[in-house]
Amino acid sequence: MKYSAINFKDKLAKFSEHFSPKIIAQMNDYHFKLGKFQGDFIWHTHRDTDEAFIVIEGEMRIDFRDGEVNLKAGEMFIVPKGVDHKPFAEKECKIMLVEPAGTLNTGDAGGDLTVKDDVWV
Amino acid sequence: MKYSAINFKDKLAKFSEHFSPKIIAQMNDYHFKLGKFQGDFIWHTHRDTDEAFIVIEGEMRIDFRDGEVNLKAGEMFIVPKGVDHKPFAEKECKIMLVEPAGTLNTGDAGGDLTVKDDVWV
Repeated sequence: MKYSAINFKDKLAKFSEHFSPKIIAQMNDYHFKLGKFQGDFIWHTHRDTDEAFIVIEGEMRIDFRDGEVNLKAGEMFIVPKGVDHKPFAEKECKIMLVEPAGTLNTGDAGGDLTVKDDVWV
Repeated sequence: MKYSAINFKDKLAKFSEHFSPKIIAQMNDYHFKLGKFQGDFIWHTHRDTDEAFIVIEGEMRIDFRDGEVNLKAGEMFIVPKGVDHKPFAEKECKIMLVEPAGTLNTGDAGGDLTVKDDVWV
């Protein structure tokens, strides 16, 4: 059988939209997604799940109601479920998210920036 | 509140043992672990879960009964549950694993190389 590595750079080259993570792998009922963040995202909460942010390239910040965390390539952070957060990146930042399949990018906030959790790249 | 990034290099500097992954983060009931692989690990299977391998630095190979996959930094692979596999790295390779809390490194094979899934770094 042919087994193939999933290469982050190859996958990232296949899309350019910001704040629109694409699925690259599934582990049990969890998705690994790659995303490109630039500018301000919206405040939102995932009521039922934690969410893992891993920075692949660049820098980003996650704002919380009572603080913030700055992340650069080679760093990660787990946003606990039920915690309001707002991602931000001054310049384009390439990230990997790990979260349960079906998790929406805007959590409970909804709105125009919501993308379906079903696009593989 | 003070929120802190989890830095892979800082965490990797805290241990040197091979094939002995350490937990760096928990997301719901899953663990993110960092490991240093060098040489041959043993054939084993995880009967109840897939397992994600993400290469942070270096190169490794995962052998299967009917093939292999070569992985380098910036690449990942999901080993499906129930599939025999054997990790190998010619030179030291630094990796991240994502798998359910409690997953043993040797799966159903057991033996001297088994390490408890409860060591944080």
